[in-house]
Amino acid sequence: MSDKLKQCREQIDALDEALLKIVNQRAALAQQIGHLKEGGVVLRPEREAQVLRRLQDANQGPLSNVAIAALFTEVMSQCRALEAPLSVAYLGPEGTFTEAAALKRFGSAVQGVSCATIDDVFRAVESGEVQYGVVPVENSTEGAIGRTLDLLLQSTLQVCGEVMLPIHQCLLAQQCDVSQIQSVYSHPQSLGQCQGWLNVNLPAAARIPVSSNAEAARLAAGHVNCAAIAGAQAAGHFGLNVCVENIEDDARNTTRFLVLGKQQVAASGEDKTSMVLSATNRPGAVHDLLASLAKYDVSMTKFESRPSRSGLWEYVFYVDIEGHQTDEKVVLALAELKQSAAFMKILGSYPLAV
Amino acid sequence: MSDKLKQCREQIDALDEALLKIVNQRAALAQQIGHLKEGGVVLRPEREAQVLRRLQDANQGPLSNVAIAALFTEVMSQCRALEAPLSVAYLGPEGTFTEAAALKRFGSAVQGVSCATIDDVFRAVESGEVQYGVVPVENSTEGAIGRTLDLLLQSTLQVCGEVMLPIHQCLLAQQCDVSQIQSVYSHPQSLGQCQGWLNVNLPAAARIPVSSNAEAARLAAGHVNCAAIAGAQAAGHFGLNVCVENIEDDARNTTRFLVLGKQQVAASGEDKTSMVLSATNRPGAVHDLLASLAKYDVSMTKFESRPSRSGLWEYVFYVDIEGHQTDEKVVLALAELKQSAAFMKILGSYPLAV
Repeated sequence: MSDKLKQCREQIDALDEALLKIVNQRAALAQQIGHLKEGGVVLRPEREAQVLRRLQDANQGPLSNVAIAALFTEVMSQCRALEAPLSVAYLGPEGTFTEAAALKRFGSAVQGVSCATIDDVFRAVESGEVQYGVVPVENSTEGAIGRTLDLLLQSTLQVCGEVMLPIHQCLLAQQCDVSQIQSVYSHPQSLGQCQGWLNVNLPAAARIPVSSNAEAARLAAGHVNCAAIAGAQAAGHFGLNVCVENIEDDARNTTRFLVLGKQQVAASGEDKTSMVLSATNRPGAVHDLLASLAKYDVSMTKFESRPSRSGLWEYVFYVDIEGHQTDEKVVLALAELKQSAAFMKILGSYPLAV
Repeated sequence: MSDKLKQCREQIDALDEALLKIVNQRAALAQQIGHLKEGGVVLRPEREAQVLRRLQDANQGPLSNVAIAALFTEVMSQCRALEAPLSVAYLGPEGTFTEAAALKRFGSAVQGVSCATIDDVFRAVESGEVQYGVVPVENSTEGAIGRTLDLLLQSTLQVCGEVMLPIHQCLLAQQCDVSQIQSVYSHPQSLGQCQGWLNVNLPAAARIPVSSNAEAARLAAGHVNCAAIAGAQAAGHFGLNVCVENIEDDARNTTRFLVLGKQQVAASGEDKTSMVLSATNRPGAVHDLLASLAKYDVSMTKFESRPSRSGLWEYVFYVDIEGHQTDEKVVLALAELKQSAAFMKILGSYPLAV
């Protein structure tokens, strides 16, 4: 071993010892805080978001802000689990993007519960079987997950947080001569995320929607002239080759997930508030709703209409705004909005995804 | 917020800043080391094992040694990934114990590739598609995974490490009145791990072996009088209840996994060497093999016989010994062993599981 290598390793050893000491000091303080809190609340989403933001602002590298967030999420996860690990339900099966989102938010020291449907995740949190749930809510290319929106309307759960996860799609097939590919299987969401690429590269291939990307890979494994669109991790499992990577039309293709719980999250300084509204049945009603937000200078980050189940051609609107429901201008805007809306339900205020 | 809480949080903030500085210093040193090394070798299993052992020895809590190993595995994972993330194949599907073992060993900053069979994991490493592979090799209650042993005999891959993972089994069913349960589905390994519990608690129920624990849970979800043995995380996915936890006969029920690669791992100070032997066809031949180990005071940690594919009633022996193949007494013992064995193949020397 060269002297230089030896020297670097000795320096790393010294740093590791310092790290060890500090993470244990941190864990001891987290324990103290746990004993100070009443009612056994172990997770403070607003506080965790503040910690990560501050560290990312202070980060000078070489570790990326993504790596710093991952490391400190894990530190907080282990400190939290000193008392008892959090239980978190997510839309399964294991290995899906939703599990990855839950891990990204809560770290590895949690008790994960895989659920078969979005309904089951809501039920698991409502019944108290788990403390938090994670469900997908929208994709940047393909739009809303309708079932999540419908359940949010009915449920008494609070939105306690959001997670953003970049999604990369690949073309998987037994053989990578794309001129031979006659059909492409995938979940409709994924077909939609890659339609531009398909139009250019596989214009003649049939696009066959199936229930999941894993099912698509399974089907493609059975036919030499078929391909699947799925994540790279599905390739090995079904004996397929990754023919083309990152075929999503938008390189920033991202899925947004919501964290569900029973807790009203306090303001973190950079927050969002989600709500459902319906307008009264008269001309200009929707415009009036939005006017209350504009008046108090509250930015809207999402406005999504969805058929209401209560009548033909009636709609509810899913609206996200910047700010916490306790922020002064948000309080004023919401009070006015409430006057003009036929129906209004606040789903929760929570920190912006870090 | 109470003064005491505020004070604790300020102390945590100060510690986090110190942590941030140190992990970045560590990452910068890891980058320097990466540039010093030739041939792009990014993983030094013996060095990582030494780092974790030293930190566990120095650990005074409150974080457990398990938490410390998880945290520093993640620190090393993120530092390694600064150049390029390691690619690791594992026996899938995602969410299995083997994926958990891969994560435990390599941390989250890796490119995971799920494979459908143990054969596929070997192939993925042999072809260079991935740098490392993780496969199960034995369970403490139910014994060897035959396919892994057979492939180790044929393959040119090296064993680069081992991972131990505690395995907890649960009884899952639609309804938890066990007197109503007529059949129990599970993988044969899991049925075996819980046979004592089944004898006492469900003596009359039929035990039906199926291909995986996930398949067992799926089947149990279809019949009100059926149960499955599987991990707790499968319950939610199939809408089953966790009726009884930890029904494995041995609370220390552990599965051992091997890390496969193309690298000969250097000595870490606490190592194991795995090999395959066959004895010549004469009385006392096996005894003579073992005598060479005893003579040089080399401890054997595993001795497993397996039918050889080459002839009826011929066997090969899978032997693990303490020590590295470059340790002085191991060198002497192996040289003598080689003389008396009809066949001998060293599978690899690697650090003991941390």
